[in-house]
Amino acid sequence: MYKLLKKSGKVRRGQFITPHGVIETPVFMNVGTLAAIKGAVSSIDLKEIGCQVELSNTYHLSLRPGDEVVRKLGGLHKFMNWDRPILTDSGGFQVFSLAHRRKIKEEGVYFNSHIDGRKIFMGPEESMQIQSNLGSTIAMAFDECIENPSPREYVEKSVARTTRWLLRCKAEMDRLNSLPETVNNKQMLFGINQGGVYDDIRIEHAKEITKLNLDGYAIGGLAVGETHEEMYRIIDSVVPYLPQDKPIYLMGVGLPSNILEAVSRGVDFFDCVLPARNGRHAHVFTKHGKINLNNAKFELDDTPIDEECDCPACRHYTKAYIRHLFKAKEMLAMRLCVLHNLYFYNKLMQDIRDAIDGDYFEEFKAEKLRLWDGRA
Amino acid sequence: MYKLLKKSGKVRRGQFITPHGVIETPVFMNVGTLAAIKGAVSSIDLKEIGCQVELSNTYHLSLRPGDEVVRKLGGLHKFMNWDRPILTDSGGFQVFSLAHRRKIKEEGVYFNSHIDGRKIFMGPEESMQIQSNLGSTIAMAFDECIENPSPREYVEKSVARTTRWLLRCKAEMDRLNSLPETVNNKQMLFGINQGGVYDDIRIEHAKEITKLNLDGYAIGGLAVGETHEEMYRIIDSVVPYLPQDKPIYLMGVGLPSNILEAVSRGVDFFDCVLPARNGRHAHVFTKHGKINLNNAKFELDDTPIDEECDCPACRHYTKAYIRHLFKAKEMLAMRLCVLHNLYFYNKLMQDIRDAIDGDYFEEFKAEKLRLWDGRA
Repeated sequence: MYKLLKKSGKVRRGQFITPHGVIETPVFMNVGTLAAIKGAVSSIDLKEIGCQVELSNTYHLSLRPGDEVVRKLGGLHKFMNWDRPILTDSGGFQVFSLAHRRKIKEEGVYFNSHIDGRKIFMGPEESMQIQSNLGSTIAMAFDECIENPSPREYVEKSVARTTRWLLRCKAEMDRLNSLPETVNNKQMLFGINQGGVYDDIRIEHAKEITKLNLDGYAIGGLAVGETHEEMYRIIDSVVPYLPQDKPIYLMGVGLPSNILEAVSRGVDFFDCVLPARNGRHAHVFTKHGKINLNNAKFELDDTPIDEECDCPACRHYTKAYIRHLFKAKEMLAMRLCVLHNLYFYNKLMQDIRDAIDGDYFEEFKAEKLRLWDGRA
Repeated sequence: MYKLLKKSGKVRRGQFITPHGVIETPVFMNVGTLAAIKGAVSSIDLKEIGCQVELSNTYHLSLRPGDEVVRKLGGLHKFMNWDRPILTDSGGFQVFSLAHRRKIKEEGVYFNSHIDGRKIFMGPEESMQIQSNLGSTIAMAFDECIENPSPREYVEKSVARTTRWLLRCKAEMDRLNSLPETVNNKQMLFGINQGGVYDDIRIEHAKEITKLNLDGYAIGGLAVGETHEEMYRIIDSVVPYLPQDKPIYLMGVGLPSNILEAVSRGVDFFDCVLPARNGRHAHVFTKHGKINLNNAKFELDDTPIDEECDCPACRHYTKAYIRHLFKAKEMLAMRLCVLHNLYFYNKLMQDIRDAIDGDYFEEFKAEKLRLWDGRA
């Protein structure tokens, strides 16, 4: 259940109440594709760096270790020892970005595994069944994620099918939640708005899916080829047509500056692999934007990545030390930078929530964008 | 300063007092070659898993980041944020095992770097200078580590040179410790006994180096080709000729069972890459010996590696989860297993100390060897 605590212009401050605890929004979800954060970060670490929601990937987990294995072990929460909310994606995005020899039909998608080439079929029912086996707090609807730009005609057809798939997702999720053997029979379902960069298709689709009274709504198919300006325009177009008493989730976004812009347009949930991926490549976020620790100028720098940061990396280690670890190819380098970047994102969201609570979000946003100066 | 707390047969329970704190012996030193433990384990983690002494490698650090860089940053303790004792090896072992096109002369060793092929010279003075720049608590003498078996004639010549090198090490260390700009001018020096598998050469060498009244003595050149039985025989031969008021360090050893056997022969210090290396390959130590988490039988095993273990991996995660992480190539797998194995070794040493204190070491040793049954 979404509780709107405060609204200031389009900016929303809320709480999303789940069986695994309350999510304070706006929130950034930390991506742990295979039930672990890449960079040797554990569920215990996630608590230390202020993560509220962990996000795992349905397609990946269905292949390794297999959702049946996770179900037998009591579900994802028990498997990875994380008692806070978990959101699982539908597998749709990975089917379209990773799988080989993909064939889309009305019933679903036929494709070959990116690991061993094995033939797989995934449709709305299969996606719900896998997510039910994983027992996540929030399941995402199975949709087609279309590349931007795509021809209008294709987008129209695809979106209509995504709507039909959504109805099947809801029916299947209701059925699964009613079964006594289900891992988490209070599993929630979020619908996903699609429509490429066509505002009118997006709006019509938003109206359609709103009718289903789902637990939340996502804006999908963005950050896949379009410009930031197009993305912001589409958010502006769609948000008014999504229910205001449900959370709005912008999938796969993004840079800290993207998050600020989207929050100011009414978005509540975010996720992105960017902070962890950047961290693994020595790119770390600071109050003055992103820096690259491989840079020679940090060789003798005995200050932390960010003097004011309270993350495990900044509390204990210097830029010179972490730079050395990267040069020496020590895994600890990645771990420290991933911890730092995820902490940075989680802390940014906390600061955003504080700014909304304190009625200074617009000043906060302007100040951050000025300090980052295009480097975040 | 070494303080013998208790002696029971040959078994010693002691304390080694250093400027960075007291080391309770027998002790296992945790190897962090490049000022970090391989497997994304940090100095903060080391405290959590009960590490008393960190060991870093002089040769590796002289190449990356360079000992001058470490010196400028205040020494190894500050660099890696570790305030307990650090032992650095002399670089000798790596020069003989890693370096290319090695040429041994009276003045030292000419060789090519294993990283970029660059020509390097290292002799006793250079090794002391590097270790002084690193500012470790305990420096090791520069010696030649001979392969086992080697011809008697070669061993005799080599050991005589190692003795001459030791005199130069001591003179250089005294000089460096007297300089005001030295990072740690209370740096201690341990000599190293060599002699291959020739008991009489070992004993003569032990007598020679004992005269120098160093801070401690190591038995080097073991676990490099000889059998366990030969190793134990040599320890038995040499220990009586090393000073009893100084710690005795068996370099590069070993398996838990080797440690028990060596403790029962009077050894106080140990180090080995084995627990971390095994951990990175899913081999973990339990009270019933070593197991391989890649084994299919652990797919649905929802118990920790060791039910009675208090390490971060066993407190929070199951064998099924860690096995999945290995299969999925998640770095977290290595981290958890390295933490577990190092904790296992540190806890073993704690249990050994308790057993000596409680007068039940022999029973403890017999029981462990019975439980491990050749698998540790």
